[in-house]
Order: sequence, then C-alpha cells, then structure tokens
Amino acid sequence: MRSAIKNIGLLFTGQRVLKDVDLIIEDGQVVDIGSSELDGYDAAGNLVIPGFVDCHTHLVFAGDRAYELKLRLEGESYLSIAQKGGGIMKTVLKTRKASEEELFKTAQKRLKKAIRAGTTTIEIKSGYGLSLEDEIKILKVIKRLRDESPIDIVATFLGGHVVPEGVDRKRYLRIVTDEMLPRVREEDLADFCDVFCDEGAFTVSETETILTRAQELGFMLKVHAEELSHTGISSLAAEMGAVSCDHLNHITEDDLIRMEKNGTVAVLLPGTSFFLDSGKPPVTEIIKSGVDIAIATDYNPGTCPILSMPIILALGCLYYRMPITEVVRGVTRGGALGIGREDIGMLEKGSQADLIVFQVPDLINLVYNLDDDNIVAIFKKGVIIYHR
Amino acid sequence: MRSAIKNIGLLFTGQRVLKDVDLIIEDGQVVDIGSSELDGYDAAGNLVIPGFVDCHTHLVFAGDRAYELKLRLEGESYLSIAQKGGGIMKTVLKTRKASEEELFKTAQKRLKKAIRAGTTTIEIKSGYGLSLEDEIKILKVIKRLRDESPIDIVATFLGGHVVPEGVDRKRYLRIVTDEMLPRVREEDLADFCDVFCDEGAFTVSETETILTRAQELGFMLKVHAEELSHTGISSLAAEMGAVSCDHLNHITEDDLIRMEKNGTVAVLLPGTSFFLDSGKPPVTEIIKSGVDIAIATDYNPGTCPILSMPIILALGCLYYRMPITEVVRGVTRGGALGIGREDIGMLEKGSQADLIVFQVPDLINLVYNLDDDNIVAIFKKGVIIYHR
Repeated sequence: MRSAIKNIGLLFTGQRVLKDVDLIIEDGQVVDIGSSELDGYDAAGNLVIPGFVDCHTHLVFAGDRAYELKLRLEGESYLSIAQKGGGIMKTVLKTRKASEEELFKTAQKRLKKAIRAGTTTIEIKSGYGLSLEDEIKILKVIKRLRDESPIDIVATFLGGHVVPEGVDRKRYLRIVTDEMLPRVREEDLADFCDVFCDEGAFTVSETETILTRAQELGFMLKVHAEELSHTGISSLAAEMGAVSCDHLNHITEDDLIRMEKNGTVAVLLPGTSFFLDSGKPPVTEIIKSGVDIAIATDYNPGTCPILSMPIILALGCLYYRMPITEVVRGVTRGGALGIGREDIGMLEKGSQADLIVFQVPDLINLVYNLDDDNIVAIFKKGVIIYHR
Repeated sequence: MRSAIKNIGLLFTGQRVLKDVDLIIEDGQVVDIGSSELDGYDAAGNLVIPGFVDCHTHLVFAGDRAYELKLRLEGESYLSIAQKGGGIMKTVLKTRKASEEELFKTAQKRLKKAIRAGTTTIEIKSGYGLSLEDEIKILKVIKRLRDESPIDIVATFLGGHVVPEGVDRKRYLRIVTDEMLPRVREEDLADFCDVFCDEGAFTVSETETILTRAQELGFMLKVHAEELSHTGISSLAAEMGAVSCDHLNHITEDDLIRMEKNGTVAVLLPGTSFFLDSGKPPVTEIIKSGVDIAIATDYNPGTCPILSMPIILALGCLYYRMPITEVVRGVTRGGALGIGREDIGMLEKGSQADLIVFQVPDLINLVYNLDDDNIVAIFKKGVIIYHR
C-alpha cells in the first residue's frame, strides 16, 4: 500500500533541498519524490527533514546531578566536585542500587520525551554499572526499551567508561575483556563497544586492549576521544576501522586525515561543551577535513542533561557556529552514519520513511524560532507517531 | 479577601530562599509568608519564584531577519549583511509599511508567548519607526497592548536607535529632541527614553543631547551602552541618574563604580551575545562591583529572537557562567529595578503577587531541566493567568 506526505513546502533529504514536493511511501520506505495523486498526510507547505538520529546517549541511569551544575557555576572544579562525591561514580552507585524495573521506567519516560522532540533513532550506552551484573542489567533495560518503543534503538556496551572505585585497574580491564564482552556478545545485548579514553578514564593502551577484544568478538567500535586532552586514540581507532570518534575537542589535523581515510565519523556534542564550558572542537578544521560529521546530545546526568535534539541543533549553530545545513545534516544523516546505518537519516528513494514536519519556512528557522515548539508531526517507518 | 498559595516546597522571594511555606495574598499583594489555614492554590511542594520581569525588549516590529542568522553562520560580517539590505533599517522599512493594527496583532501574539513562558512584566521599546509618525504608531501599539494585557507593560521611547537612512544626522537629532520627545510626553506614551550609543548608532555627545532633553521633559533614562565598543556612555548616564545601562560587553571598572554609586542597574542580555557570538560582558567584575544586575531578553528580530525568559535564565548560567541565584535574581528582582519598580520582582510583604510555580525541586533545576516545560502555574497580582 502506497501513501504520501503531500504538499511539502521544503524538503531536506539529507543530501539536497527540494521545494514543493510529495514524498511517496511504501512498506515504511521512501519509494519516490515528486508529485502524487495519492491521498495522504497534508504537510501544508511546511518543512520536512529526516527524523533525528541521536547517535550518542547515556539514557539509562538512576538519580540526577543537578547539584554539580550549581557548584560548577560557583567556580568549583571537576576534581573538587568529584572529591565531594560527585562525578560518574555517583551515578554508578545509584544505578547499581536501582532495579531493572526502576531503570526501565525512568528511561522509558526519557525516551518518550526524546521521541516527542523528533528523535526517531537513538543510540544508548551502558556504562553506569561497571560490574558484570550491573552492565548486563543496563543492557537488558536497553533491550526492553528496544522491544517496546516505536523507534529504532541501538545498544552500545561502555564497560570501559571509567575504572570503578575499589577495583584494581588491571583486574577491571580483564573483567571487561574476559567476562563482560563475551557475555554481552553471547546474549546479543549490544552492537557497539565504546571506551572513554582520556585523563581520568582509560589510557590509549588500555583502550586498544578493550577495542581489540571487542573487534575479535564482532562488535563495531566507537571511542570517546580527545575530549579533555589529546591522546591520539582517534587516529588509532580510525585505523582499527572504528565507526565513530566522539567529542574531539583536542583533535589534530593528522587525526582527521586518518579518520577521513577510514570513513570514521566525527560525532560532535555541543550540549556537553556548553554545559561544561570546557572548550569546543576545532569545528572549521573538522568541516574542512571532509570527515562525516554527526551531532548528538551525549545525554547523561553529569555533563549534558539536554535530551532535545532541536536544542542540540540550535547549539550546533549558535555555540559551535556551524552553518545550518551542516548542522541539520549532522543531526540526521550524520547521526545515521555515526551508528553505521545507511538506510536512515535520509529521505531519498530506499530510505526508511522517518521524518519530522516542522511549521517553519526554512531550515534556519529551526534555530531562529528555537523557543517555539515547531514540530507538527513525526513519522516512523511511514507511520505517524506524533501530531500536534 | 485573603487567599493563599499553599504548600510551597521552596520559595525564592527575590531576597531569600524559604522552605515549606504558604504565601498569603490580599488585593493582589503579598501580605504574609508563613503557614495559613486559608483555602488556596496547592503548589504541591513545588518551587515558587517571582514572575519574570523582562526589562529590555523590542517587541513591536514587522517582518523577521532569520536569513541574516544564516549568513552570519556562514561567516558573513555585520557590515556585509547590512550592505545586502539587512540590519535595523530592514526592520524599520517593514515596520513603517505595517499598519498599527498589523503591528498590534503580531505583537499581541508574541506577548502571549512571553506570558506563557512566565513573563509577568515587560518593557517594550519603540525604535523601528524612526520618523515622528512611525514612532508614535509603535508607541500606540504598546499602549494598546498595555490596555488589553493581563501583565504590566512599560513603554520606552527609542527614537535614538539609529539615524535612519536618507536623513541628515543633525536634522534627525533635532527631530528626536524637538518633535518626537515632546509629542511622546504630551501623549503620555512612554515612561523611559533610551538611546543606542555606539559605533554605527549615536555618539556620546548626541546621546547626551537626547538624554538631557528627555530628562527635562520628565522621562526616566536608559542607554544601550558599551556593547560593540567602549564609549564611556555608561559613566555619563550613571551620573545623569539613568535607571539602567544595558549590554555592557566593554564596561570598565570606572564605569561600574559610577553606576554603583548612582544606583544604575546593569542590564545583561545573554541571548544577544549568544546569537551574535559577539563576546560577553565582564560578568565576574560586574558581580563584584555591587551594582544591581538585571537579565533580560533584548527580544528583537535581528540580534535576539528568543522571547522565553526560561531560556534566557539558562543562558545566564550556561553562557555567562553566573551562579544560579544571581541569575534568578536578575530575571526577577533585577529586572524590576531595571525599570525602576520596587513593588515587583519580589515576594516579600507588600510586593505585588506576581509569581510562577515550577515543577522542579530547586533553583538549579530551572537550568538543569531546561528542555522540560517546568511551569505549572502563573499568577499576576494574585490571580491565576495560566495553569497546566
């Protein structure tokens, strides 16, 4: 059965911008763009873009860390906040205490909010368990969200988030490589393995150990790279064929050349830079390098509580000062490439028909009108999942 | 008749923070804070703060300038955009063409949006007419908004916005001082006179001429000061007894000393800095100086299309990196002082009962939860004007 989104004033397909077209859909896919005699949804001359692909989130956790933001604005350092019991370990301790059911309920609520804001595909990482049992618990929550949600959910194993307090580094590394990774693979709970490689997290050599083992087991690779300092992990990960390197505040030209050569996506996270006031990646150089750019939320309780992709889109423009087309591509097509998906984040023939109808005349109005709720309708695989 | 806002979990009065109190209201004013046997609105343990006082807006204009944002993000300069027909004159030409009725309708729609976001008092400037007739037209729109709106509206005459194209500078200055100001006074259309003193706008000497005349006629004074460059107008305006100096990106310590001595309020406009990426005021020095600080939107089509005070509040924290209490005071009590009002922006005995109920546990959550709609209810003079 064919259907159509009719009377689209402006269509951003992920590749190009078209005026006054209809989008023809069959079996959840775009089968044609043109004009159609079919009945269908009337877009009333509005803007249509692919649904947002949020390719970097830490959606499943317990508790919040609002108080750390308060302290940070009063001038306290990350270190001093950690010494007061803040930081990742605070969330780990709360998440370990929470039941799978509790984690599911809160994550489900968050997911609904993300969907309402136009996210039609989301990546979710574990990483607040940091024990075999708790990492599995989180990944099971992600699996359950995937089973019950109308949108696509991609799971990433992030046992390599930090070394948990009270565990020897070498021993923890062995738990990750010898216990967690095989078990996650066995239960088919994640497609990606990610590692936080930085000062205070994992070294390049430790990261390589985890990624190598993960690759042997068939995981696709991601890294939290060059965020707080330059480690060079992005070059190494690119050469290992990583799908994405994320953050990149301290990325170098050499790293970018390697990423471009290996098709590794640069995932930019402006919400985190904005919340932490921690500096920005060299955006102009990244654009010039020709790498594919994704823009995502990094949603997590400590460094980016923003889950709304329209706000992240605005920050891409206003905080990272990127041109609007780059940013809109980043939150759609770029996000899809950031999780290795060719079939989404785009509205060309053969693409999955995930799309958002915005009541604005042009792409720039997604930013200019940022304090309006501009979303009129959201479609997932050709089916309307929200309308005003 | 007394009524009460009961069961307030946390009350920020503008001066202090209280836990678990009721607010007793009579004749639109706060008459007591404590616990009460009266019936009333159940705040259900939520946060209550004074209604937002947005003390710097240019709400009445025709057209939009979204396209200029697009160009700016592509690297075009302000000058180059002006040469392509952008800038203030673009809005002036559109506004001159619009009828009073058209301007009223669009401004009314904007005002409703501001109210929905918690603004219970707003200042509105003219300044997109720049001819006697068109400035009066805009001020009449503001008067009509004031007559028909549930919230307090304060009018400011900004004939001294820029010298309009096609008019000799000296001649325009005489039109402002000899025709516009007396007429605005005669028709009682504004309480304040404001001048944009900067490169490309008015010189210090021209500004002094306008402000002196305005003061003779009984207007209270404001200036757009030290935004693009340091002119020293803030010192001069402070010594003339100006109520506020606004923007202040290039303010000096000396200026701040004079402002503090004369009780001149520093109005900070983080939305504009954010949109223009034009640098920030020396916030730490301003806080240290002891001046009263207001934080407002600067809502206008060219440099800040954000009309939502919750977003401006978030930018005060996240972009200007100000502590949460300073920022919340700035958007409430500070804003009130910025328009010379002692009776609003506060919830102590004798204050006007303008307030917002937020479904958050603490002030910092106004920022941490910025992508939620946290407003549960809004009261103006003790009367509920919005509830979820």
